[in-house]
Amino acid sequence: MSKPLLQIALDSTTLEKAVADAKQAESSVDIIECGTILACAEGMKAVSVLRALHPQHILVCDLKTTDAGTVLAKMAFEAGADWLTVSAAAHPATKAGCKKVADDFNAANPDLNVKKEIQIELYGNWTLEDAESWLESGIKQVIYHRSRDAELAGKGWTEEDLELMKRLSALGMEISITGGIVPEDIHLFKEIKNAKAFIAGRALVGEKGRQTAAAIRDKINEYWN
Amino acid sequence: MSKPLLQIALDSTTLEKAVADAKQAESSVDIIECGTILACAEGMKAVSVLRALHPQHILVCDLKTTDAGTVLAKMAFEAGADWLTVSAAAHPATKAGCKKVADDFNAANPDLNVKKEIQIELYGNWTLEDAESWLESGIKQVIYHRSRDAELAGKGWTEEDLELMKRLSALGMEISITGGIVPEDIHLFKEIKNAKAFIAGRALVGEKGRQTAAAIRDKINEYWN
Repeated sequence: MSKPLLQIALDSTTLEKAVADAKQAESSVDIIECGTILACAEGMKAVSVLRALHPQHILVCDLKTTDAGTVLAKMAFEAGADWLTVSAAAHPATKAGCKKVADDFNAANPDLNVKKEIQIELYGNWTLEDAESWLESGIKQVIYHRSRDAELAGKGWTEEDLELMKRLSALGMEISITGGIVPEDIHLFKEIKNAKAFIAGRALVGEKGRQTAAAIRDKINEYWN
Repeated sequence: MSKPLLQIALDSTTLEKAVADAKQAESSVDIIECGTILACAEGMKAVSVLRALHPQHILVCDLKTTDAGTVLAKMAFEAGADWLTVSAAAHPATKAGCKKVADDFNAANPDLNVKKEIQIELYGNWTLEDAESWLESGIKQVIYHRSRDAELAGKGWTEEDLELMKRLSALGMEISITGGIVPEDIHLFKEIKNAKAFIAGRALVGEKGRQTAAAIRDKINEYWN
C-alpha cells in the first residue's frame, strides 16, 4: 500500500485568493483541489488557471456532479482537472456518463501521467452494495467526509465513520478523507489501508498551513510505513 | 391554487449563448434559471448578468447545493438569485444553513417582490418523511425530475413518479417538474394541485422554443383553471 497523499481544497470565493493560497501551499501538498465554492464562484476558469500554475500537481475539480455528467466531466477534464467528484446521490447514468468521458479521455491520451478519474462523494443515503456497484463499473475512488456543515455543527468522527471506511477499504476502494482534518486525528484512520489522501482547506493555508501540512506528513509517516 | 409557471433552464457552457437564449425566451417564460452547467462554466457572473438583464423575472440559481450551504447561498442570493436549489442528499445542517441565509436576507429586505427561497432537488434516496421535515423547517419547494441522464437513457415518467408527486403535493409541497417536459406530457401532471412550475431547457430555446412555450401554456390553461 502507498502512503496517503495530502490535498488542499481551495474554497475561497475569488480566484485571486485561491491562486495565492495555492502558491503558498504548492510545496507542501500533492493534490490541489478547485473546491465547490471556488468553482461555483469563478467557473471553469478557476480550474484552467490552477492547471496552468501547477502543471505537476494532481488537480481535482470538486463539482459534486449530480446530473449532466457527460457535459460537466468534459468541461472539467478539458479545463485540466485530473479527477472529478461525483455525488453518490447522482443517478447511475450520471456516474456512468462521467466515467465514460474519463475513459475516452484516457484512451485518446495514452501518455497521461495522471489518468482521468471519477471520485464518488459519499453524500446522502448510500450503501456498501452501491459501493460494490461503483467498483464493478471501474470507479475506484470515494471521498468520505463529515460535511462542512456537520463539522460546523460540532459533529465529530464516529466509530460508524471509521467502520464504514474500513469496509470500503476492504472492498478495494481508495478513500480520500476530509472534514476538519487535523494532525491529532490522523491516528484514527491508521487501519484504513486504502487511504488515498487527506484533504483539508483553510488548515493548509499560509505559513501556519505549511506547519500543519508537515505535522500531518509526520503522522502519515508514523502510521503508514 | 395558482397556475404552474414556466421556467427556462439555461444550460449552455458559455455566458454568451445563455444571454442570447434568455433574451429570446424572456417574453414566454416566468422564471429564468442559471443551470448547473452554466453556473459551473461561468461562475456567479452568470447569475449577476442574468439578474441585470431580466430584473422582472424570477431568477433561479441551480447549484444543487450539497455542502457549504451558507457560503453558496450567500453567493447566489447576493448575485441576484431569488431561489436556490439544494440537493436532497445534503446534510440537514446544509439545508438549514441555506434556509437561514434566505430568511436573514428576507428579514433585511422586507420589500422584496420575490422572497428568497430554497428548493430541494430530489436526487438520491429520499422519503416522504424527509419531505415532512423540510416542510417543518419552512422549506416549501421541491424539484422533481427525471435526471437529465436518466432521460437520455430513455427513462420515461412512471406511475411511481406521479404518485410521489401527488403525495408531496398533498403534504403541501410546491413542486417544480422537469426532465424532458413536452406539451403532450402536461396532462400527466394535472392531478398535482401544487405544481409550481414546469422547467425545460433546450425545448424553450429560440423561435421554436416560443412555440413550445405557447403550447405548454395552452395545456396548463386547459388543466389548471
